[in-house]
Amino acid sequence: MGNIIVGQSGGPTAVINASLAGVFKGGKDNNIKVYGMINGIQGLLDEKYVDLSQEIKTDLDIELLKRTPSAYLGSCRFKLPNMEDNEEIYEKIFSILKKIDIDTFFYIGGNDSMDTIKKLHTYSIAKNKKIKFIGVPKTIDNDLAVTDHTPGFGSACKYIATTIKEIIKDATVYDAKNITIIEIMGRNAGWLTGAAAITKSNDCSGVDLIYLPEVVFDIEEFIDKVKKLQKTKKSLVIAVSEGIKNKNGVNICELEEENTLLDCFGHKSLSGTANTLARILYKKLGCKTRAIELNTTQRCASHLVSEVDINESFLAGVYAVNVALSGENGKVIVFERTSNTPYNINMKSHNVYDIANVEKRVPIEWIDSKNGTVSNELIEYIKPLIQGEVYPIMVDGLPKHLKLNRY
Amino acid sequence: MGNIIVGQSGGPTAVINASLAGVFKGGKDNNIKVYGMINGIQGLLDEKYVDLSQEIKTDLDIELLKRTPSAYLGSCRFKLPNMEDNEEIYEKIFSILKKIDIDTFFYIGGNDSMDTIKKLHTYSIAKNKKIKFIGVPKTIDNDLAVTDHTPGFGSACKYIATTIKEIIKDATVYDAKNITIIEIMGRNAGWLTGAAAITKSNDCSGVDLIYLPEVVFDIEEFIDKVKKLQKTKKSLVIAVSEGIKNKNGVNICELEEENTLLDCFGHKSLSGTANTLARILYKKLGCKTRAIELNTTQRCASHLVSEVDINESFLAGVYAVNVALSGENGKVIVFERTSNTPYNINMKSHNVYDIANVEKRVPIEWIDSKNGTVSNELIEYIKPLIQGEVYPIMVDGLPKHLKLNRY
Repeated sequence: MGNIIVGQSGGPTAVINASLAGVFKGGKDNNIKVYGMINGIQGLLDEKYVDLSQEIKTDLDIELLKRTPSAYLGSCRFKLPNMEDNEEIYEKIFSILKKIDIDTFFYIGGNDSMDTIKKLHTYSIAKNKKIKFIGVPKTIDNDLAVTDHTPGFGSACKYIATTIKEIIKDATVYDAKNITIIEIMGRNAGWLTGAAAITKSNDCSGVDLIYLPEVVFDIEEFIDKVKKLQKTKKSLVIAVSEGIKNKNGVNICELEEENTLLDCFGHKSLSGTANTLARILYKKLGCKTRAIELNTTQRCASHLVSEVDINESFLAGVYAVNVALSGENGKVIVFERTSNTPYNINMKSHNVYDIANVEKRVPIEWIDSKNGTVSNELIEYIKPLIQGEVYPIMVDGLPKHLKLNRY
Repeated sequence: MGNIIVGQSGGPTAVINASLAGVFKGGKDNNIKVYGMINGIQGLLDEKYVDLSQEIKTDLDIELLKRTPSAYLGSCRFKLPNMEDNEEIYEKIFSILKKIDIDTFFYIGGNDSMDTIKKLHTYSIAKNKKIKFIGVPKTIDNDLAVTDHTPGFGSACKYIATTIKEIIKDATVYDAKNITIIEIMGRNAGWLTGAAAITKSNDCSGVDLIYLPEVVFDIEEFIDKVKKLQKTKKSLVIAVSEGIKNKNGVNICELEEENTLLDCFGHKSLSGTANTLARILYKKLGCKTRAIELNTTQRCASHLVSEVDINESFLAGVYAVNVALSGENGKVIVFERTSNTPYNINMKSHNVYDIANVEKRVPIEWIDSKNGTVSNELIEYIKPLIQGEVYPIMVDGLPKHLKLNRY
């Protein structure tokens, strides 16, 4: 076997580097040289890559890498054109890979990134290029098809649920009417917002209402529901997904025009759903309202990760190398849950064609939008994924992270 | 000595319950009955209080209480009228305290709460009431006079700095121009925003600009500064205090009217400074901007507290009981820093008259608004306060908190 190369793509997570550490360890243990591409496929096109053994030198470095949030190698949002439209770009990539004698190309990412694996794999087969392509799943959104869940999701859930438990304590401290609306990431899939539901326990009243983007959000019904709850409870805490939409498919955050902020690609930024609802409730009900957007901390809070998640993320990387060594190609690592109590999964490889660009959403029957609740199935599904803690290595009061030296 | 009563007031912190645990432990160890008032002085006026020994039964309960965020007994924002204007309210309070044979009244809070201690103490002396009043400091804002720092500040700094380190990793992951603006609590005092400065270390580039409310914020100068930095750095991370104002004293978040949200008391809500700046930069520079408001998580993130801070908070509570036992009255517990390396403080008691309603701000000479930086003095002042970790007691993947049974 020649060398291998690994890249990271899409939005970061708190444990995406654990998968990178896994691929590196898998390669190293098999005496394979592991390259890392800088800023994913975009950087590779500029021939930006490093020999990872020059960067990750000790076992402590591996542990630090596992505990370092966001993509250590940098990331990109780069959609490969179809091979019919731009063959040069494919030829360029393959010539760069050939130059450093790459046997297998690993890409850690979500369903957009798996599209890159699919396209490169397809081209490789069509042109008989003899380079293998393997995807390692990663996304806090948990919206990848086939796999039971995705690395990164459990840690984001643990952080969200912990933070919401704390916010509930904070929000209910005064003997006065008030409403707190917490906005959680997820444009189309409400998995992460489901984490708000697991806060309910014998030391926490939990969130009072919860809304996922899979189901139409009816603003009038919502206001009525809040009014009704206020009759028996002074402090209300409500969890909403950033992507909730009304029956016309309009994002709630776009109901008030001033909330719409365009980014440099002209994409509408969805931030502002909680703010919009807080304004509307304030106008309608006149009581104190507060909007809390959990924001990017959901995907980078490596100071509070799930042990289950970080271990699975690492092992998915190691497993991906083994899959490549056994000669497989065009595959993505997936998890199959064989038991919930006790929790157990099997790792498998699965054809990338079934996964790339497919979005898995929360089953409609797990959501009760009329009552602003979710079913116990969603709670039981999430709970095993947040178990255990892996704390950062603290130096001088702050978490120590591994930093790439060359770029 | 008779019984004692303790209350919590003002905005919660992650460690305000450690001080409550300290007062309880101090009383218990001296065989004194400790009552807790529900929702501070406001609840006391409705005769809402509990015998804390019925709630905190074991040493494990004390440890759980120390790790429970927000005010365990509930809080209030209640300004006592002057005794000349409303003597009845004072008589009512003293008659309730007499009924349960209170020797000393402890109030855990910030400078508004110390006003309550001052007024009750003054009334007690004037009317020869024989009840003592002792204040235990608490505020993440660190704006209390006389004391070197306040319990709650160190943990908030640790959380803010840790989170910003993670956000910087997240924000700098793409090879594209972007600006992240992080909004930190502090209307008039920039102590907490100073915590953003301690992120700079050999594994983190730190924040690129930092603005505190003690100094006029010049928006044109700011935009020029950002433009200049963008020439050499693609991703910029900027920390601002929620309370920064322009030369006319107008809050930056009020520059765009739609950001102003009134709460039910008609107070303007200051949230939106980062959002306002992100909008302005987007309009002027056209690149991707993101606003991150750290929000109430700054004051309730008990999952990541400073060991120094939680220990000091607890000991301040114990010390307050000792101060009362020695016969002192009308005092507030303060910290005197005797050495920075190694860090050491002495606890003392100080006359409440010097502390109530006084606001301590960051020295102007520690702030360089022209360059958007702070001095090394501020960094060295904060660093000892964030040292060490006390992690939550985790049950089923989430932090366990102590919950009041009766209310």
